Amino acid sequence: MPKMDLHSSPLLVLILVTLTSASNLITICNSLPIPLMAPLQSLKQKDATSNSKQSNKSLFTTHYFPQELDHFTFQPKSFNLFYQKYLMNSTHWDKGPVHHGPIFVYTGNEGNIEWFAENTGFMYDIAPKFGALLIFIEHRFYGESLPFGNDSYKNAETLGYLTSTQALADYAILIRSLKQNLSAEASPVVVFGGSYGGMLAAWFRLKYPHMAIGALSSSAPILQFDNITPWSSFYDAVSQDFKDASMNCFEVIKGSWDEIITKGSTTEGLMELSKKFKACQPVQSVWSLRDWIWSSYTYTAMVDYPMPANFLKPLPAFPIQEMCRRIDGFPVGSDKIDMVIAAANVYYNYTGDQKCFQIENASDPHGLDGWGWQACTEMVMPMTITNESMFPPYNFTYEADIISCNSTYGVKPRPHWITTEYGGLRIEQVLKRYASNIIFSNGMLDPWSRGGVLKSISSSIIALVTEKGAHHLDLRFATKEDPDWLIQQRNQEIAIIQGWIDQYYQDLKDIS
Amino acid sequence: MPKMDLHSSPLLVLILVTLTSASNLITICNSLPIPLMAPLQSLKQKDATSNSKQSNKSLFTTHYFPQELDHFTFQPKSFNLFYQKYLMNSTHWDKGPVHHGPIFVYTGNEGNIEWFAENTGFMYDIAPKFGALLIFIEHRFYGESLPFGNDSYKNAETLGYLTSTQALADYAILIRSLKQNLSAEASPVVVFGGSYGGMLAAWFRLKYPHMAIGALSSSAPILQFDNITPWSSFYDAVSQDFKDASMNCFEVIKGSWDEIITKGSTTEGLMELSKKFKACQPVQSVWSLRDWIWSSYTYTAMVDYPMPANFLKPLPAFPIQEMCRRIDGFPVGSDKIDMVIAAANVYYNYTGDQKCFQIENASDPHGLDGWGWQACTEMVMPMTITNESMFPPYNFTYEADIISCNSTYGVKPRPHWITTEYGGLRIEQVLKRYASNIIFSNGMLDPWSRGGVLKSISSSIIALVTEKGAHHLDLRFATKEDPDWLIQQRNQEIAIIQGWIDQYYQDLKDIS
Repeated sequence: MPKMDLHSSPLLVLILVTLTSASNLITICNSLPIPLMAPLQSLKQKDATSNSKQSNKSLFTTHYFPQELDHFTFQPKSFNLFYQKYLMNSTHWDKGPVHHGPIFVYTGNEGNIEWFAENTGFMYDIAPKFGALLIFIEHRFYGESLPFGNDSYKNAETLGYLTSTQALADYAILIRSLKQNLSAEASPVVVFGGSYGGMLAAWFRLKYPHMAIGALSSSAPILQFDNITPWSSFYDAVSQDFKDASMNCFEVIKGSWDEIITKGSTTEGLMELSKKFKACQPVQSVWSLRDWIWSSYTYTAMVDYPMPANFLKPLPAFPIQEMCRRIDGFPVGSDKIDMVIAAANVYYNYTGDQKCFQIENASDPHGLDGWGWQACTEMVMPMTITNESMFPPYNFTYEADIISCNSTYGVKPRPHWITTEYGGLRIEQVLKRYASNIIFSNGMLDPWSRGGVLKSISSSIIALVTEKGAHHLDLRFATKEDPDWLIQQRNQEIAIIQGWIDQYYQDLKDIS
Repeated sequence: MPKMDLHSSPLLVLILVTLTSASNLITICNSLPIPLMAPLQSLKQKDATSNSKQSNKSLFTTHYFPQELDHFTFQPKSFNLFYQKYLMNSTHWDKGPVHHGPIFVYTGNEGNIEWFAENTGFMYDIAPKFGALLIFIEHRFYGESLPFGNDSYKNAETLGYLTSTQALADYAILIRSLKQNLSAEASPVVVFGGSYGGMLAAWFRLKYPHMAIGALSSSAPILQFDNITPWSSFYDAVSQDFKDASMNCFEVIKGSWDEIITKGSTTEGLMELSKKFKACQPVQSVWSLRDWIWSSYTYTAMVDYPMPANFLKPLPAFPIQEMCRRIDGFPVGSDKIDMVIAAANVYYNYTGDQKCFQIENASDPHGLDGWGWQACTEMVMPMTITNESMFPPYNFTYEADIISCNSTYGVKPRPHWITTEYGGLRIEQVLKRYASNIIFSNGMLDPWSRGGVLKSISSSIIALVTEKGAHHLDLRFATKEDPDWLIQQRNQEIAIIQGWIDQYYQDLKDIS
């Protein structure tokens, strides 16, 4: 990828700057560090399953499927093959006397598919009950599924093929082929996904109802486009999470930004801050420090789980409360910068084993740049920050977005494409009379929930909302600490999915 | 386009060879002249409306919409603009006190959009009742909507963008823009289409339910793919039409093929046949003569209307009966070739004003080659001919199809793509639990009906089948000669569409 100029690139910065996997970017201006929908962890994969029931078993076998580059044209280049990775677990697959059991497919999102498999324990937990085959398909242009190898992120010529529509068609083609090869044509397919993967799962059911009988779409902000959801909702929600934990905490954070920027505006001040922040190397820009703090709030809000968990980072139960507990523990009149560093350390260093932090130039082993491209093409989710939030105010304009994306990738966003292709405007009215068999689950502590479907639309387009849930919590492995409402939510999901499958087999029987 | 080698290209021949618009092809071998779904007429456009109620009025105004070349990638080239033609008639559009009236959109198929507008009088006939705005959108790569001007059919590099998925996205983008520009965001859209246009209408409702509240999909063989419909059904149906008219007629036709080929296998015999057939120039190949006769049967079967009509050619009511009447009128022992020429003349020269026929090298002013490309990429509809039909036997294989398409266009068909992208396998089971608001209308005299949806699937996926109907007869202007069953069919369609619109406005009211 060409080096990015982020001076005029607010949206990009906001997506790309994550200190857990920060790529080779330096943020230099006052721009908006939006979180990745599912930021990639810097932990090793084996750590990700250390708490799981399956830690001593092999979770999957790995496979590769030859996939064509472009399903929607017949240009000569469209036939170029790449190898799409997918994972399989057939341990509990019921080879039944008449038909095989169902196939549960995870529609992979922006990262290595192993990571999503390891963090979608719900599919493993329910596989025995359903006699289900598990498949996790990696999204094109991520992980090992890079169509042009190391050149995949080179420029718009190659990146141009990284779109959600192509990804959905990949899934359809792979699923069809797989069912044929496994002589499982009659097996019903249910798709699962979280975050962007949840959007893909819902859209897959909407666009390929002949391929999947239903979708569990968890924490999928499919309404975070155009003017459907208020643009300030994401940061309002993060702010509300902190306000609910402690009003003082909220105020300290709100007041800290100017102090950081003022302090870091001199070379001396920046040096001092580098030390305070425990940067492994002196930072070049105060904005990097700001964004490091900023990201700790947004990511912690997303994974504000009611039990200790290790999705993005190892965190305690209710990590926002822990952040605010630290802030509130400082004596009156303390330095706000010290306070927010202490809070950020909940996110970055709860285990205490980090001696310093890669605040700039952190390496990115996960192909993160793909999401930056997606945000500059299809995934234009306008976000603003109001004066009422705990973050510095920010305005979004399409004009600035176009300029920024052009300068970064040489590409023009199509900001209304997602709602043209998949809908979203007046979704209730449309889906009430059309689609069926989708669960939209959201946890309200997760700021992405505001762009999700929060009300049931019909008897089979069902919203499951948990007040104390967070970013696709329901998809995680069950743990001993699970609260009753989470157990109940998962039981509802199981019952609904069972209903889809029963109906499918009944229809099959009626027709044959 | 490069000159085509059709020696090994049966499927292509079958689609491209039509003597009404035969392009620059010479058919040289024993291949299958399959009909275009909606073969283009050689008549001037003004003739096409000469029988219509609207003949003295202007049917439409003409407009052009800047459309991007490729909606599914973000390659630099994808942003190239072309100008898509669309026609509009707002004569009866209700500007009502609260909302504008509905918008009826014809999803254009393989030809000039004017021709489809002029032959879809049903939309004009019902516009006053509904207070509807009428829009007819030309399909990309046809008529004036050529993305690369005269180079559009040059090779796979340009033709590659001619796909049904791109066409549907064109329609979605244009409709959204139009509604916005007309301040008609709340107006419900109903899509209409016949033949390939009917497939597009149905698929548009399936893929873009947020854009169209329903579809009238007339004579749309969406099940003519893969193994869903028996491969012999099309030619079995044509044969049945002739058998039903007269067994002798069927037998004469069946016995005529060998006589034509035998006679035409010598230079002298071919010269003699050229004269018999009234070819304007001596023909170079006996296969051209055979295909000329052949096409007259298939096209007449498609437009075997119960009243005089001028869709493909000016024809009498029940033109197959007229063909068979001519054959049956010959004394016993007459030359079969004379008999089938007389029958073919019903199709080619019912008015008697043709002194000779352009049997080879007829010009094609309508961009017909686009369909040849489509048949070699997505629209792979396998067809075979059994010994029981009145045509010479023919086998279809995917292998031969691949070789043929490669040699003609340098492209590889994706024969299972349509069913992967749009479904079709076990369509009942899928749509019963999913979609809504589609009318599939078919007339059983039309051989394409066999690949259509002939049974209602749910209370709102409705099949309207007429035993004596033919190729999208219901979409034509009403005439004084319309039989009761046709009037009744159209009334059913009107009532169903009215139901969709009522429900839409009721839902809108309930939500707001």
